[in-house]
Formats: sequence, C-alpha cells, structure tokens
Amino acid sequence: MNPSLEIFSQGEEIVTGHTVDTNAAWLSQQAVQLGFTVTRHTAVGDKLDDLVALLEEISRRADCCICTGGLGPTSDDLTALAVAKAFDLPLEFDALAFAQIRQFFINRNREMPESNRKQAMLPKGAERLDNEWGTAPGFAVQYRRCWFVFLPGVPSEMRAIFLEKIRTALDKRFSLQPSTLVSIKTFGIGESDIQQRIDGIDIPAEVQLGFRASLNEVQTKLLFPPRYPDAGMTALVAAVAGTLGDYVFAVDGLGEVTGDLAYTVDQLMKAGKHTLAVVETASQGLLAGLCSGSAWLLETRYECSLERLARKLALAVSTEDLPGTAKAIALATQKSSGADFILVQLYAGDLPALLDKDKLVVLHTVLWAGGRFHPATHSVAGPIKRKQNQAALMALDSLRRYLQRTEPDVLACDLVKILVPVNKFPDAVF
Amino acid sequence: MNPSLEIFSQGEEIVTGHTVDTNAAWLSQQAVQLGFTVTRHTAVGDKLDDLVALLEEISRRADCCICTGGLGPTSDDLTALAVAKAFDLPLEFDALAFAQIRQFFINRNREMPESNRKQAMLPKGAERLDNEWGTAPGFAVQYRRCWFVFLPGVPSEMRAIFLEKIRTALDKRFSLQPSTLVSIKTFGIGESDIQQRIDGIDIPAEVQLGFRASLNEVQTKLLFPPRYPDAGMTALVAAVAGTLGDYVFAVDGLGEVTGDLAYTVDQLMKAGKHTLAVVETASQGLLAGLCSGSAWLLETRYECSLERLARKLALAVSTEDLPGTAKAIALATQKSSGADFILVQLYAGDLPALLDKDKLVVLHTVLWAGGRFHPATHSVAGPIKRKQNQAALMALDSLRRYLQRTEPDVLACDLVKILVPVNKFPDAVF
Repeated sequence: MNPSLEIFSQGEEIVTGHTVDTNAAWLSQQAVQLGFTVTRHTAVGDKLDDLVALLEEISRRADCCICTGGLGPTSDDLTALAVAKAFDLPLEFDALAFAQIRQFFINRNREMPESNRKQAMLPKGAERLDNEWGTAPGFAVQYRRCWFVFLPGVPSEMRAIFLEKIRTALDKRFSLQPSTLVSIKTFGIGESDIQQRIDGIDIPAEVQLGFRASLNEVQTKLLFPPRYPDAGMTALVAAVAGTLGDYVFAVDGLGEVTGDLAYTVDQLMKAGKHTLAVVETASQGLLAGLCSGSAWLLETRYECSLERLARKLALAVSTEDLPGTAKAIALATQKSSGADFILVQLYAGDLPALLDKDKLVVLHTVLWAGGRFHPATHSVAGPIKRKQNQAALMALDSLRRYLQRTEPDVLACDLVKILVPVNKFPDAVF
Repeated sequence: MNPSLEIFSQGEEIVTGHTVDTNAAWLSQQAVQLGFTVTRHTAVGDKLDDLVALLEEISRRADCCICTGGLGPTSDDLTALAVAKAFDLPLEFDALAFAQIRQFFINRNREMPESNRKQAMLPKGAERLDNEWGTAPGFAVQYRRCWFVFLPGVPSEMRAIFLEKIRTALDKRFSLQPSTLVSIKTFGIGESDIQQRIDGIDIPAEVQLGFRASLNEVQTKLLFPPRYPDAGMTALVAAVAGTLGDYVFAVDGLGEVTGDLAYTVDQLMKAGKHTLAVVETASQGLLAGLCSGSAWLLETRYECSLERLARKLALAVSTEDLPGTAKAIALATQKSSGADFILVQLYAGDLPALLDKDKLVVLHTVLWAGGRFHPATHSVAGPIKRKQNQAALMALDSLRRYLQRTEPDVLACDLVKILVPVNKFPDAVF
C-alpha cells in the first residue's frame, strides 16, 4: 500500500478565500506521481492554537505531510512557533540560515529589515531547507509516524524547493512505486471534443484518464500504474495523441522537458534559426510578452487603430478586403524589419466591441513564412482580458502549426516519434 | 464572537490535485462577508470512512459547515451515504426530488439514466435544496452544534444555490455581524519594510492586521470587527496608508471599487484625458499588455536591440549617457506618435544578462509628461519572466506616481481623502 500524505496550508488569506490554494493541487499532483496516496488537504488561518491542534492530528494519521505558508517575517507567520509548541522542540537561532537571509538582501542591494531575523529561528533538531529563491528557509522534522516538510507559501519558491530538494528526499525516505503521468497538451480544442475523439480508444481500466483545462491549453492526462510496460504506454499515448492530431503541441512525461505553447514556439524558432517581426492589435503586446527573452523576436508594434498603422507604414488600406490588408501590412513590415517571418494580427472593429464581454470579435491573422502567406481567421469572445489572451495564443499557435509541419526534424522531442507514425502531420487548418 | 464556519470539499479530483478547489475560496469570501469566521478548509477523497470521520469531527467544533461535491449519480459520489452513517439518519426516497431530476432530463429531451435515481435518496429529516441548475439537489441538516449544508461540486450550480437559497438561510439562522476588511495596496515596497513602517502605529487588539504579497502588489489588510466606529476606522487606515506614502496606489474596502496597478493607471489616464506612447525593452510587450483595451494607449514598440531602435528612429545614440539616450528616444517618439505622455524603458545590456536568473539588470525609465522629463532608474532580478513582469510594473508605476501627484482631484476615490491630509503626496522618487 502507498504511504499516505497530507497537505496542510497555512494562512488567513486561504481560509478567508482571498487566495485560491493552488499550492495544494500542485503538491498533490507531485505526490501522486511519486507514489503517495494523498488523503487530505487542510487549510487553517493564523491562530496558533488551530495550527498546533492540526499538527498534532496529522502526526497521528499520516506518513508524510507537506505544509506551506507561515514562514514569512511578519507577526502573523506562526508556523515555526506552532511546530515548536506542538512537537515540543524549542526554537533555536540558525546562524547559517541567518547568513543566507542576510545575503539575499545584500545581493539585491537592500538593507535587511530586523523582522527577517525571525526567519532564522528553527525548531530544535529540524533539518533546514535552504531557499535560494527567497528569504524564508523551509525545514523538515519527523514527529510520531509523520515526516513533516515546511515550505514557504510563495508558489515559485515552494515549487523550486520541492523540485530541487524534497522530491529526492521523499524518494529516499519512503519506499515509493511511482506511477507515470503523461500529459498530452493541446491548444484550440475543448475538453468535450477531446473526450469524443478519445471515446473510440480502448483505455485499460488500470490507466486513469483525466483532463485539465485552462485558458492556455487543455491537458489530456493518462496516469499509468507502477511498472506499466513501456511499449503499451507508448502505444496508448500515440493512439490518444494521434486522434488529437495537430492540436497537440507537446507531450509531457515521456522524458522530454516540455513547456507551454510559447516554449514550444521558442524551441522551434531557435532550432530553425528564424527571426520574427510582429504586428499586434487585440492582443495589445501580450503576443510579444509571451515570447519573453527570445532573441528571434526582432520587433513588435501595436497601434491603437488601423488608420494609425496604415499611416505609419505609408499604406493605403482597405477595410473591404481585410485579408488583403493584413498581407499588405505583412509585406511592409517584412521590408522594414528584415525578419524572415512576419506575423500580423488584424482587428478592424472598434474598441467598444472588443470591450463588450458579450460580443465576439473576428481577427484576421496572416503569417508570412517560407515565401508564402498563411492566412487564418480567428474569433475571440468574453471579457477583454480573455480576448487579449486568446488573440495572443491563437497567433502564436498559427506560427507553431507552421513550424511543426515544415520542420518536424528540428522538433527534438518525443512528439515527433509519437505523432508522425500515426498522423503524419495531416493538413493544417490554414 | 462570530459563529465559526468550515468548508469541506469532497472528491478524488481535489485531493489528487487534478482540480484546484476554487469552490472553497469562493464560499469563504461569501462567509466572511456575511460575518462568519472561517476556521478551516478540508478536502478528502472518495473513501466513505474518511468522509464519516470528517463529518463527525466538524459536528463537534464548528457552528456551520458548507460541503461541496459527492452528490452526483456515480458510485464514487458518497456524501449522502456518509451523512446517513455519521449522523445516523437513514436515506429515504424523496419523491419531489425525484420528480425534479426526471424533469431536468425531460426538459433536455434526454432519457434519465437509472443511476440518477440515487440522487433522490436524502438523509431522513434533511431539508432539500432544489437545484434548478443541474440534477443533484442539495440538502441541509443540523447535527450537534453544526448546521451542515451540502451543495453540488459543479461551481456554477453551487454558486447559484448558495446565492439564491443559502445566503438568506444563514442570515436567518445565525446572528451575524459582518466585519469590514480594508486592503491597502502598494507597489515597490516589501512586506517586511511595510511591517517596520507600521510598527510605530498603535493598532487596537480587536483589529486584525495581515499581509498578502504577490509579484504584482503587496496588500496590507486591516480586518475591523462589526460596529467598529467609522471615524476610528478612517483614522487607522489613514495612519497606515500615510506611513506607506506614495507606495500606496489603491485602498479597497471603503466603498470604492479598486483594482490592480494597471486599473489605477487606467482610471487616472481616462480622467486626465491623456494619451500615451510606449517604448519597451525588458518588459517586451507586457507593459502594453497590462493596459488591455485602453483607448489612451496610442502605440507601443519593442525592438530587440538599442541599435535597431536607434536606426528606426534615425537617432545617434550613446551608451555612455543612457538617461540622455532615453530622453532622445522619448522626444523622437513624441514627435512621431503625437501622444502627450511618452514612457520609454531603456535596457542597454545584453540578452544573456537578462536571461540569467542570478543577474540583476538596470533599466533607465523616462516619462515625458507635463512638458518635462521624469527619469527613474529601476533594477530587476530573477528569472526572465519575473524580470519582464517587474519591468512592466515599474514603468507603469512611474506613470501612476506622476498622475497621482499631479492630478489628485481626478482620483475620484477615497485614496485622496485618506492620504492627502496625512501625507500631502510627499516628494516622489523621481
């Protein structure tokens, strides 16, 4: 039987509902993959007695507990004190922790406030978990049957410490039989359409099928039990990914490190040594924003109206022929930028329609690449932030589809091995 | 003292981390506003014994408990059975509930699967909560000191039943006195510096002080008990906001609807009828992206190098005098864009330094506004996504500080009433 694990989140912002506890979900996924059975999540606020009582409870019923939050410098950060009280381990000053906290401020040219000294007080005998990403060190301690790990509540710091330190420590401490989670990442297709496509595939009862939908992607998840045969796993993933065709932009969990849609585009652009210039409308900077730190993005431009854009490019534009206008903008941009790929997103409607959450707006996207135009029409709906995000992702996805189709061999990833035999990159949507 | 309330979420998808429990956060916010003290969130999976044990526990320690999930038609939906077992209330067939479930399918021209019959089995004596939005009726039952409310886990159904039925029922059952939460939102100052500044202020013991830090803002939260005198509340908020000075960009909870930093800038730009053109570097589109749907943003531009930018603007630029270069870029942009405000963010370093999470980079920002240059130097550190986000926010904050200082009367918000008497908008950081 798998060892049991609980998640314990501390903070008034969580129990009062000001913050959605995404840490608990993220940690649970990690724990399940490692081979734990996650039995409970609990969140409590900043009351010392509640914290002490909860630590007590958990120490009697779980084999492991990951706790987040309450390690900050302020007076409502009570985790270390609660541990000291619940497990009878007096707080002691940790000189090395203190030196690291001080160094954090020195590195940033800032003076260390006196209140941060508190973060160097750790329960006696606890194992310090260095935090290279923030000021609060974590710590771990065994009490009764349970191994407790205390991590900061800031998601980026929590994740970094977990991935770098806790994962291997858990593996050493517990006899774990990890299952394998494969996530097939798609853009542009909804959960129920995916479900319908998959319905025809025979998924063995011991493989758990799940979905995770966000605005940015839908992940189709296959959780394989420990020691599931490799060949069977690859065949099933290939069948599922194959039926989803070129909606698939990455496959996670087969050894390849993958990321989001922008990461896939970045890998493909780098490998193909291309350069890009972008003209945005509805995405208003976000398309460029998603490609942060990319050397291949030479320039981007946003103008609040088609008239302004036409004037800047010295073009006579027609609102009668929007696809033609998008092409003309692409050519002018190619000339002035010297980039070999040009991505133009044209929205010719007015601002009120864009801002109206009940109105759907149409975007004319054109990609100039490989000496040809690749036009596409997208429509986006919902509140402005959603429209902006979808507009950016759809334009980026046009680029991804082109690159994935024309340069499958630069895709140094398992996606090719999986998709090509099944699917041979069928006709794209252009 | 406020009655205590717990949130209990049921479902394997929650404990395994496949679903982030947004229901718990939403319900908690509602409960806090109504005047409950939310003491705990707990999530467990589909094991009957865990459910029974948890219901038992909660019935001894909370005055009210809102439970979501586990009311569906499938075999892993065990909530009603767990209630029957924990509270010794045998399940009984509810003919009216059954008729409603059948009607739901008739209305949709679908045949009712036999498994849905199970949803009409309710614990003896429980009060049925009709669900006009889905198939699963909720129910409520008193056991020991606690009033339990069971709602479906589908967020839209849960919210609809809560808002239409539970809110008023809670108000009738409990003697509720809503407290007031005031959040002072700042940018550019850390949690521990805030704590230090506030240390000198005498905060009455009955007012709860808390903090919520994210990359985009730090909120200093004051939770006032019911019937706290208005004058005392305003004075305390003014004292706290005053000591934080012009780091404060908004104050939430005093009647004004406020938002994030970009929202504040949007309100100020609209009120002042200004227009803006932007030149970005490290923020790479994100600065424009944060201002989505703004009519006052005329244009934005990103060029991957200072050389490219200089060529496009036909400027001879000097890397010796970066503040001077930023000013020259601002003037050229003013001429070509016609905007009355120009915001230039200049990064003159190389891409590797920007991408290196251990390297701090320096940005020269200049705002052209009111016929004058307002230069500032910012430094950003951390991984590229963090640098990008901070760069965008810092530039936006330069604009916010200028607007808040020069046009306090267009700030149609309580921030002015609170800050001006205490602080008189002291010297800005420019």
